[in-house]
Amino acid sequence: MQSLAWNGQCLQLLDQTALPVKTEYFACHDYRRVAEAIRRLEVRGAPAIGAAAAFGIVLGARELAENHSDFWPGLLAVADELRQTRPTAVNLFWAIDRMMAVASRYSPLFSPEETLLALEAEAVAVAAEDEQSNRLMAGHGAKLFTEKTAVLTHCNAGALATVAFGTALGIIRQAWAEGKISRVFADETRPLLQGARLTAWELMQEGIPVTLITDNMAGWVMKRQMVQAVIVGADRITLNGDVANKIGTYSVAVLAKEHGIPFYVAAPLSTFDFSIKSGEDIPIEERGDQEVTCLGGVRIAPEGVDVFNPAFDVTPHALITAIVTEAGVLLPPFDEKIAKIRLEKGGK
Amino acid sequence: MQSLAWNGQCLQLLDQTALPVKTEYFACHDYRRVAEAIRRLEVRGAPAIGAAAAFGIVLGARELAENHSDFWPGLLAVADELRQTRPTAVNLFWAIDRMMAVASRYSPLFSPEETLLALEAEAVAVAAEDEQSNRLMAGHGAKLFTEKTAVLTHCNAGALATVAFGTALGIIRQAWAEGKISRVFADETRPLLQGARLTAWELMQEGIPVTLITDNMAGWVMKRQMVQAVIVGADRITLNGDVANKIGTYSVAVLAKEHGIPFYVAAPLSTFDFSIKSGEDIPIEERGDQEVTCLGGVRIAPEGVDVFNPAFDVTPHALITAIVTEAGVLLPPFDEKIAKIRLEKGGK
Repeated sequence: MQSLAWNGQCLQLLDQTALPVKTEYFACHDYRRVAEAIRRLEVRGAPAIGAAAAFGIVLGARELAENHSDFWPGLLAVADELRQTRPTAVNLFWAIDRMMAVASRYSPLFSPEETLLALEAEAVAVAAEDEQSNRLMAGHGAKLFTEKTAVLTHCNAGALATVAFGTALGIIRQAWAEGKISRVFADETRPLLQGARLTAWELMQEGIPVTLITDNMAGWVMKRQMVQAVIVGADRITLNGDVANKIGTYSVAVLAKEHGIPFYVAAPLSTFDFSIKSGEDIPIEERGDQEVTCLGGVRIAPEGVDVFNPAFDVTPHALITAIVTEAGVLLPPFDEKIAKIRLEKGGK
Repeated sequence: MQSLAWNGQCLQLLDQTALPVKTEYFACHDYRRVAEAIRRLEVRGAPAIGAAAAFGIVLGARELAENHSDFWPGLLAVADELRQTRPTAVNLFWAIDRMMAVASRYSPLFSPEETLLALEAEAVAVAAEDEQSNRLMAGHGAKLFTEKTAVLTHCNAGALATVAFGTALGIIRQAWAEGKISRVFADETRPLLQGARLTAWELMQEGIPVTLITDNMAGWVMKRQMVQAVIVGADRITLNGDVANKIGTYSVAVLAKEHGIPFYVAAPLSTFDFSIKSGEDIPIEERGDQEVTCLGGVRIAPEGVDVFNPAFDVTPHALITAIVTEAGVLLPPFDEKIAKIRLEKGGK
């Protein structure tokens, strides 16, 4: 399953707001449409929006080249528009930075057309490396499971959240293939129900046993010893190992601690923000009231009610058992391991 | 606001499944319709279903008297049908037992018509005492708040869950009147959204500031120190102080403990089950999949997905700061206080 695909002309995106009722791809020929898709969550999941933004830069560069516009200032504006789409997932900024680094190397020396080719190659590499890092992560992560385990996951950190394989669900997929997963409990993940709509659907497609629960059942499922591990994805990880992820992740982490259940986070290194010390500095996106008060056009709360709708929360590193990356499994203390990775990546 | 009213001829029930879109009462002239209303959650909330069942016994007794049916065996069958409607809230069984005790005293000595009059008086007393106990509870509970407090509540323990005033929301209402409540955070309470549909609506009707959140935001709201107390209702309280309440209550209690926030339970003595030692013996109702997979007719999960849908969970007494009853505020150790109440109530 692919959340996105580049065909040399346009970016094909799977419309995740229509799942599981419809499985429809739509074509983005314009970077503005990519920005809109990220804002509207037609494409979502930190790694997937990073890759989508990379192709957005390509589409923007092509438009500038075709129109003989002033290339570098134009591309800065494209990058800026893409950066404004969502604030929390750092993969978005990471991918845009990576694309702009290529553009800044090529554009002073080469024509816009030649720079465009280099940008296209870089975006294709971003997408290919994401899938590759997911597969490496799956190999490392599956080793965490030594016996048949029922796992709980929150939101969707599957193929749909990445380019093609998945972080948390990639590990579950691999562990399932190795006979180590008995069942997955999927939190439905209000308000936008990524667990019900996407995770349950992805797992059912692969024949992995999945039980859907509402978010408020997770504690009771743990209390009744129906799960033995939790694994989730991440939208941003700071130098000390704090993790921003979909709202509700923090509650699940506290509940896992209370029940002595390991709490694993799976994320590629592109999710690490080496510029931020702790989770307190992560900007948390707040989204519109109607995500909470309406569902599929049906009003489920009184008109005019006040709503608090943060899209993410931060799980402090102390609640995390291990962070699985393509470079291996990080165990606490995370700050030392993350500092080492930062150094290896050139101090950036 | 009244969840139910008896007019001498029939029981008027507010259809809580239609709230907040419509405020409609419907008439039950038949005990079978009362049973159906309890099963369908048209009337819900432990004290409210207890009172509704009491009037159901009256309606059943009237039918038997009018038809000159064999009164006592007929009434046993009526009681049995009402008992089968829902398994967890003990107020249902408490109210039916209380009604049947009256019937068993009167029916051997008096005519069915005379017994019917005694039953009607008893049901009216059940309802009146419920409202009275709520008001006493509100007075005791409001004393728990010494300064301006933002409180979080789960599900609906308001006027709609009782006959007319509310347990947890009754206390909030009283504390608000005393200037001690700054805001209420209402968990939406999936799957049936009693928090969004009923609690938010009730509080808005009274002008008490309320913020609606999804259930998975409760932990983050606590972490961000946006609330200083939690107060919920109960469906059954055992001898050791364990509390069955709406699914998700247990998670909120664990989160409150993690954040050092007091966790209060409000319930009349009719919610205490003096026959059960601990929460492990409370039967937990599991309801249909479609409550989780559909919302207002809109499908929100893949066809055929497996679902776990317990309607309640059990919060162990160790997580509870205080239990507020009409007899006063109980502090730990609860088992001693509850044993004393049981003795005062004649050892039943």
